[in-house]
Amino acid sequence: MNADYSKQNIEFNIINNGTITSVPGFYAAACHCGIKGSGKPDMCIIYTPEDSTCSGVFTTNKFLAAPVSVTKEQLKKTRNIKAIVVNSGIANACTGEMGYKNAKKTIEIASKYLGIDKDKVIVSSTGVIGKQLPMDKIEEGVRQCAVKLSNIDGHSAAEAILTTDLVTKEIAVSIKVEGGNDIIIGGIAKGSGMIEPNMATMLSFVVTNIKISEKLLDEILLEEVDSSFNSITIDGCQSTNDMVIVIANSKSSIEIKNKKDKYYKKFKNALSFVLKDLARKIILDGEGATKLINIRVINTKSKFDAKKLAMGIANSNLFKAAMFGEDLNWGRINAAMGSVDCDFDPEKVDIYIGDILIVKDGMGIEFDRKYTEKLMKEKEIKFTVNLSYGKEEFSVLTTDLSFDYIKINALYRT
Amino acid sequence: MNADYSKQNIEFNIINNGTITSVPGFYAAACHCGIKGSGKPDMCIIYTPEDSTCSGVFTTNKFLAAPVSVTKEQLKKTRNIKAIVVNSGIANACTGEMGYKNAKKTIEIASKYLGIDKDKVIVSSTGVIGKQLPMDKIEEGVRQCAVKLSNIDGHSAAEAILTTDLVTKEIAVSIKVEGGNDIIIGGIAKGSGMIEPNMATMLSFVVTNIKISEKLLDEILLEEVDSSFNSITIDGCQSTNDMVIVIANSKSSIEIKNKKDKYYKKFKNALSFVLKDLARKIILDGEGATKLINIRVINTKSKFDAKKLAMGIANSNLFKAAMFGEDLNWGRINAAMGSVDCDFDPEKVDIYIGDILIVKDGMGIEFDRKYTEKLMKEKEIKFTVNLSYGKEEFSVLTTDLSFDYIKINALYRT
Repeated sequence: MNADYSKQNIEFNIINNGTITSVPGFYAAACHCGIKGSGKPDMCIIYTPEDSTCSGVFTTNKFLAAPVSVTKEQLKKTRNIKAIVVNSGIANACTGEMGYKNAKKTIEIASKYLGIDKDKVIVSSTGVIGKQLPMDKIEEGVRQCAVKLSNIDGHSAAEAILTTDLVTKEIAVSIKVEGGNDIIIGGIAKGSGMIEPNMATMLSFVVTNIKISEKLLDEILLEEVDSSFNSITIDGCQSTNDMVIVIANSKSSIEIKNKKDKYYKKFKNALSFVLKDLARKIILDGEGATKLINIRVINTKSKFDAKKLAMGIANSNLFKAAMFGEDLNWGRINAAMGSVDCDFDPEKVDIYIGDILIVKDGMGIEFDRKYTEKLMKEKEIKFTVNLSYGKEEFSVLTTDLSFDYIKINALYRT
Repeated sequence: MNADYSKQNIEFNIINNGTITSVPGFYAAACHCGIKGSGKPDMCIIYTPEDSTCSGVFTTNKFLAAPVSVTKEQLKKTRNIKAIVVNSGIANACTGEMGYKNAKKTIEIASKYLGIDKDKVIVSSTGVIGKQLPMDKIEEGVRQCAVKLSNIDGHSAAEAILTTDLVTKEIAVSIKVEGGNDIIIGGIAKGSGMIEPNMATMLSFVVTNIKISEKLLDEILLEEVDSSFNSITIDGCQSTNDMVIVIANSKSSIEIKNKKDKYYKKFKNALSFVLKDLARKIILDGEGATKLINIRVINTKSKFDAKKLAMGIANSNLFKAAMFGEDLNWGRINAAMGSVDCDFDPEKVDIYIGDILIVKDGMGIEFDRKYTEKLMKEKEIKFTVNLSYGKEEFSVLTTDLSFDYIKINALYRT
């Protein structure tokens, strides 16, 4: 996943300083409407005047935040979405009937100020749990954003969706189209813990100018989210507000009709790159993270097994603390895998750090400790675990567990 | 579990300064044979010359340490066990064929020095993973312990099984028997992380003087381990070496034949108390712990659901870090529960700290913050989560996640 991009058959280019508004026909504006006490931007609208196809993937947490419930309902009515209203500072989660009504009300307000059908608006929130949205401020925020929407200021939207994040997360790529408008994909994301249910969450909004059916876009998104946002973990926790939204506005004149289509594979690869890049940026901004750890589990019977084992290692506090201490403690990898509910033969497990074999057939072996000590000191560390009983694999990105993780999450006050 | 012992119908007494050798017919000795570099005790033998019934519960980690495999094999041959040989310092885990042979060899050595059938010896190890046992030191240790076995020094055994633990964990209780010898149950345990696969593990050895069938002892042990050792978690990790062993040597003249037996319930309650007490002592000595958190989930359809939810909360790093920071961050309880794979209605969830209702129907409510701030400052904090859809419940004990957990686990060197 922090993959050797060079090895891929890349058929797209990264746009310098790219963001969502690098995509033709998309507009964005942000403002500070007063939800955050800090004076930082806390509201944005992403908008396209074109007809669109929208696809979404949402948290499976049972305490579903109101904006997630309402957005899911909206997408059942139509996938032709023209606006996303996002606020940060308050998550509108665990807010009951009033929270639900406020999310619906936000849609009505946006519909009024943008002059579009209310079925074509979706909402998203991130911030503290258990507080109601201040609807007067929401209305003022929507009003201000609507006024500024002739701008194409995607960077300001990327900033407005942040909570405990330290940096914005943005990217845009282009796919060359001969004799036509290039296909552009742009995305923004937030999330500094995988979740931090009080002041963070994982959100991503991606837009593109292709024409595509709901069914095909759903399929591609689901598959690519699995190997990007669902392949990262900071603390194994999952938010009440997580969502990934893709909107395609048909501006490029390119239509992808089916999997055999000339641009299908090119689009899928480029979207995959965008989602993985945003996921990677979330991990790099992980709460208190000093290391980026790539855990690749290979040669399992199913992808599902490989994912369970990789996540088992990635979420082991003992393993993560050892990474922070730069100690190549392979016993913690073994112990974490052994606890996972998954059949494998522990006596056939090989473990590598970088290209160096450190565990063979489940047992530690002699290796060049001077060299591995050097690898452990690097910012990015890569482990490969070979289960030797199949052909599937899965990679997970995670962080170490540092003093700062505790500081951020213990000393923060509700 | 940190339960109001006062409310129970207690029919046993805690023996002052009690340990395993408080039980008639049990002997124990310990020594430093040189496995640990620190000069601290690293070997002990627990021994009874009587015929016995032995029951064991073992780790389900797939990387099973050699002493666990070998002890499981031994118990298939006979449950009449007379000696347990335990070493600390090296776990004999991930050691392959040689590790297996060394565990078998330890049994032969003990059989020779104790003059008992080798089928009647079991072994246990805790310490670093991936190193072979130094068999000359093991032999010298067994020899020294055998010489001292006429002593009844259970405290020395409790000390010899420790690794990163700060204190020994011991207890003994007696059940009054009219016109006969009292029933005594004594136990020792170790474990300072739930596991710490390099220098720790959860071990417990419990002995008693009743006569009981294998089947009945197995049943009781399995049930009581579930509500004691399987109800605690420090970091959600599970060791390669965990085991809980009970040996009953028939010395008291009391035989428990079936569940209707006069002493069945009394014995079961007292054993339950012993196991819970040892489990609680492990948590109190948890790596870096500053708090003991009791999470009781009530009114679920099944005990299994209640346990999954309680463990989901107890293993949430965000929740644990908030506890360390003494912040009553109930959103993290909701979010942790919502991530658990278990059906419940989030809108019917009530949460209490002590007796104070803080979440009603899944939403935060007004409560006396001054009083709850006081509760959060205490060493022991109790949460009750009411799911309102059944009659089962489960309680879990855990610790907070502190700077010292990171220090212990990151700065430790393999």
